[in-house]
Amino acid sequence: MDTASLTGKDLAAAINADTTARAKALTERAGRAPRLALVVANEDPASAWYVNSLKKSAANRGIDCDTVDLGADASADTLRTELSVRSADPETDAIMLQTPLPAGVTLDDVSAAIAATKDVDGVSPLSLGLLAAGSAGFAPATAEAVVELLKHHGVALEGRHVAVVGRSNVVGKPLAHLLLAENATVTVCHSRTTNLPAVTAAADVVVAAAGRIGLVTGANVREGAVVIDVGTNESSDGKIVGDVDAESVRGIAGGLSPVPGGVGPVTTALLMRHVVLAAERPR
Amino acid sequence: MDTASLTGKDLAAAINADTTARAKALTERAGRAPRLALVVANEDPASAWYVNSLKKSAANRGIDCDTVDLGADASADTLRTELSVRSADPETDAIMLQTPLPAGVTLDDVSAAIAATKDVDGVSPLSLGLLAAGSAGFAPATAEAVVELLKHHGVALEGRHVAVVGRSNVVGKPLAHLLLAENATVTVCHSRTTNLPAVTAAADVVVAAAGRIGLVTGANVREGAVVIDVGTNESSDGKIVGDVDAESVRGIAGGLSPVPGGVGPVTTALLMRHVVLAAERPR
Repeated sequence: MDTASLTGKDLAAAINADTTARAKALTERAGRAPRLALVVANEDPASAWYVNSLKKSAANRGIDCDTVDLGADASADTLRTELSVRSADPETDAIMLQTPLPAGVTLDDVSAAIAATKDVDGVSPLSLGLLAAGSAGFAPATAEAVVELLKHHGVALEGRHVAVVGRSNVVGKPLAHLLLAENATVTVCHSRTTNLPAVTAAADVVVAAAGRIGLVTGANVREGAVVIDVGTNESSDGKIVGDVDAESVRGIAGGLSPVPGGVGPVTTALLMRHVVLAAERPR
Repeated sequence: MDTASLTGKDLAAAINADTTARAKALTERAGRAPRLALVVANEDPASAWYVNSLKKSAANRGIDCDTVDLGADASADTLRTELSVRSADPETDAIMLQTPLPAGVTLDDVSAAIAATKDVDGVSPLSLGLLAAGSAGFAPATAEAVVELLKHHGVALEGRHVAVVGRSNVVGKPLAHLLLAENATVTVCHSRTTNLPAVTAAADVVVAAAGRIGLVTGANVREGAVVIDVGTNESSDGKIVGDVDAESVRGIAGGLSPVPGGVGPVTTALLMRHVVLAAERPR
């Protein structure tokens, strides 16, 4: 069968246009632009590249962006203090904490210091709990991007069986809750799952989010299933590739999101939308 | 095949013995018994019955218990204030908020006022998020009781496929996270699941937690599967019955937890253990 390419570019463009308009309206109303603090404590080149791309996206939307570089030796205390100060600062609307964190510091150690109302990438335990409970809070942008991409391409979720491969706190787990909220039946699989191919082959929708090249192949999906690829891995020849073996899946799946150009641009667009939503919040 | 009865009585007794010993040690060390506040705002007979049974359990363990009755007309503000005061009170170790809440007040409106360190039934969004993220926090006792009952009866979870039927914030969702932490593959099903019998029939372990009589029958489980019944429903002839049609499941399942006498006693025992754990916390 023909496998549709579930690209994220049009959706991202539509979200971005809305965000830009809302940022403009906010700026006119408040006399200042929405403001995002990017807190960095590493010297990782991939993180630096990502921070740069976020700064560009923010600038394109009319969002001010402070990069707060605490250095790769920052302690958990230093990080918590900075995140608390920014959480209390009325001029800061949104906070994103970059990974990797300094050696010995975990996201768990520090993320609770980000106020849930400013936690635009949904990394704190409270944000995760609010999401799980169906209360107001920000979902991790990548997890939300998966659901928005599926909706954009008209993939029904109600009553359908979705297999999420990967159980990270930033993708797999929050995604399971977002899918449950859409009335999907959700199976969460992971590295310890016995007979993963049989589990994914039983699903109407397969989301690959484990960070492993070749995790999902054509042999593991059923005819007509929809496959969303959340992976961004570096291949041996230096290309960015997903978790899905696209070549073998094409012709079997009903739809497949490309990497790059699928979940990625929607994720960035949603992050910027979250910044504007945080800035719009009455206080 | 022979279906083992997965009773909770021995396990509950073992937990209770440990809790009683620890409460005694705490009382000797601190000069006061561990203290649980039961906050009630209803005139529901079932709730009154449950509060009474909790008070009895607490007394049997050597735990002091305050019942704080705010009346069935209490506002969300009144509830939040009481929960905040108890959260800040150094003499209160643990807090349980009873349901139902007054008309128009939801658990979402008030549960965040319970400090996570005292939230012994894990009802607040922060507690749910801590659980989901794998951080320190109290799980809802019923969800934890399911996992403890399975372990007690030697049911392996690692790599096994568990179907959880029901997606409530107090059982289904937290249970999914507890099972993932045990390296199970977890499918969450619910009222909108298409072809529920096929989903449960594919599972090694089925947990029925939807509050519906006859939800799981022998036709929906596979030979040798383990079935845990979380339901407590009142049958037409006034008996307490679970979600599982025990008669049809017996002879097919490898094990089945009875109602009453399965998950129930373990739940109460774990609640009292949580009170002692909260009281043992250094501060």
